[in-house]
Amino acid sequence: MPMKHLLLLILPLTILLSSNINARGTGDLGIVIERADGSVQLVETSNNTILGRIEGLGDLSHASAVYSRDEQFAYIFGRDGGLSKIDIINKKLVKRIKQSGNSIGGAISQDGRLVAVSNYKPGGVKIFDADSLALVADIPATYGNQGLRSKVIGLVDAPGQKFVFSLWDAGEIWVADLSSTEKPVIRKFKNIGKNPYDALITPDGRYYIAGLFGEDGMVLLDLWNPDAGSKRILDGYGKGEKKLPVYKMPHLEGWAIAGNRAFVPSVGHHEVLVINTLDWSEAGRIKVHGQPVFVMDRPDGRHVWVNFAVPDNDTLQIIDTESLTLIKTLKPGKGVLHMEFEPRGEEVWASIRDEDRIVVFDTETFEPLTSIKAKKPSGIFFTVRAHRTGL
Amino acid sequence: MPMKHLLLLILPLTILLSSNINARGTGDLGIVIERADGSVQLVETSNNTILGRIEGLGDLSHASAVYSRDEQFAYIFGRDGGLSKIDIINKKLVKRIKQSGNSIGGAISQDGRLVAVSNYKPGGVKIFDADSLALVADIPATYGNQGLRSKVIGLVDAPGQKFVFSLWDAGEIWVADLSSTEKPVIRKFKNIGKNPYDALITPDGRYYIAGLFGEDGMVLLDLWNPDAGSKRILDGYGKGEKKLPVYKMPHLEGWAIAGNRAFVPSVGHHEVLVINTLDWSEAGRIKVHGQPVFVMDRPDGRHVWVNFAVPDNDTLQIIDTESLTLIKTLKPGKGVLHMEFEPRGEEVWASIRDEDRIVVFDTETFEPLTSIKAKKPSGIFFTVRAHRTGL
Repeated sequence: MPMKHLLLLILPLTILLSSNINARGTGDLGIVIERADGSVQLVETSNNTILGRIEGLGDLSHASAVYSRDEQFAYIFGRDGGLSKIDIINKKLVKRIKQSGNSIGGAISQDGRLVAVSNYKPGGVKIFDADSLALVADIPATYGNQGLRSKVIGLVDAPGQKFVFSLWDAGEIWVADLSSTEKPVIRKFKNIGKNPYDALITPDGRYYIAGLFGEDGMVLLDLWNPDAGSKRILDGYGKGEKKLPVYKMPHLEGWAIAGNRAFVPSVGHHEVLVINTLDWSEAGRIKVHGQPVFVMDRPDGRHVWVNFAVPDNDTLQIIDTESLTLIKTLKPGKGVLHMEFEPRGEEVWASIRDEDRIVVFDTETFEPLTSIKAKKPSGIFFTVRAHRTGL
Repeated sequence: MPMKHLLLLILPLTILLSSNINARGTGDLGIVIERADGSVQLVETSNNTILGRIEGLGDLSHASAVYSRDEQFAYIFGRDGGLSKIDIINKKLVKRIKQSGNSIGGAISQDGRLVAVSNYKPGGVKIFDADSLALVADIPATYGNQGLRSKVIGLVDAPGQKFVFSLWDAGEIWVADLSSTEKPVIRKFKNIGKNPYDALITPDGRYYIAGLFGEDGMVLLDLWNPDAGSKRILDGYGKGEKKLPVYKMPHLEGWAIAGNRAFVPSVGHHEVLVINTLDWSEAGRIKVHGQPVFVMDRPDGRHVWVNFAVPDNDTLQIIDTESLTLIKTLKPGKGVLHMEFEPRGEEVWASIRDEDRIVVFDTETFEPLTSIKAKKPSGIFFTVRAHRTGL
């Protein structure tokens, strides 16, 4: 057979065979931050295995991630101001930029076309094209009359191409409408309270709630009724008069909302607070093992899982959201830093940093199912976040 | 160059190039049922285009679909008892079985390993292995003392590897726990009301609610408290004393739940009912253009979109869920059969059957963005359903 004919035969065959190489769905994928190595493990949750590692992502000591709407790309926000776009199908770093000196998190717009990063230094929010990572808008967090710039925290996306964030130094909440990137429309809510340190948005994208470090209590903004302004809630929420030592500020993104109750980590106290979401009043306190860090709801809202600050970070506790009682205490190992539920809640992944592994639990039986090696794992982020507001 | 060397050069190159052919995320994919042709259009929602067509799926005149947890496969439930598994990455029919004479819908288990189909004839539920489509459990809907078998409707998945469904002829609700496929555990709730015709489960998987055709009212089962039994709610819900003609039974799967309000299609009346989900009492009625069929909430809960039965099926109306008022009426064309919101709600797709096209709307401006050709399109199903309970 002449070579030409052979090639004509082999070429389509090769394409046919090889086109399946990367052909898998991306609905069951996720990444695990390896904080010490500046790398991520790419994982899948159908058989609970590792698919590969992507390296060279800089300082990931306090990193978070969001996903593109098609789930092909993850955007990793590093503490060093680095913004990395990784391709989780082809397992490679697509682009990495250093967009500031010090950053604290990011968000992706409702339509998936804009990635926003909140910066400490210089304080503000930068908005990038999700495709190219080109800068498309820069929002310096300038406040007062002297041109001072505030650190920005609690950045989330909201419906209507909005980003909402808080100014630590200024005590302000800003709502930026990026419907036009040439002309972002910014609405500022001033005097909201002293030193907002983190914030969250409810899963429906309606309520933005910031915690205050400078005083007890929280502040709530109803994005459906912005003209009503911000409102103080939960005046008992905070360090209190005794000024308890706080070993790790709780993460507000981890709030659990089940039915009409929200479960939030106390600041300093060994308690999980229960909030009535109908009027945002306190509805109870549940004693737990240590200072809670993440309080996360199983996707069906039946249980919440809680991890803790040092020296109690070897423990996980599970609360029944109906009886408001502790139903289980687990000791998976030293340094339980983060948890992520599989999308429909049948299993939960937990990072055990000091033991260099991830443990996957059955959420019905609470039994460990798998232990997966990872280097100093911290944040775990599954692709289902692509479809959720504020995550 | 000898042929062997040339091949060595070309082969890896070909693999390298072609390995990207299908390498895309699956988070923005979906299918549109083409009811008259027994085919589906494969679509993507990032640029709103068609990616391909898969044919040979039998009678799709009342078809629905669920997705595998990795989003690679869709399972299509046809009216003719056909169950088709399609690969939406490689765009092909993987397997098709005829599992009964007449079926009405299906569900996929929480862990994604089981696909259940509810059948009219012979009445019951069959459970298949999601991978092979091998039958793994058969649950005949036998009732009473004479060995009669009931038609099964309102089949949904629930947390804890459960399937919940209703028996039309028997007036019963069954909860089947498939934690063990060898020994399914079935709990039966009898005398729930006359002729349940469709049902839904709330997004958290807690409340199962069936509509009754044989009498006014609905029946609610709290799956967190099954010992409490079923409970009658909304006694004013139904055709009422006048026995209005019902042009098309509304679909209950389309219920919208926004905050503490549920929005449901009236039966026969030109109204959308508002329900207080705190006690499941009626909280209002909103006059609309015709007999509502699907009442669906934008993912942020701010609006609900409604389509209608003949002769008003050329219309879509939009309700503000806070003021409970109609804010917009659209006339996209004849035969508006179904709507599906993109996962974060920025756009909505609507099937316009009689005009052989799909229209995509911006949900902020209500402007049509794109018109896409499809043959007699009906149900639209996006991959995000893989991650949601009861869809």
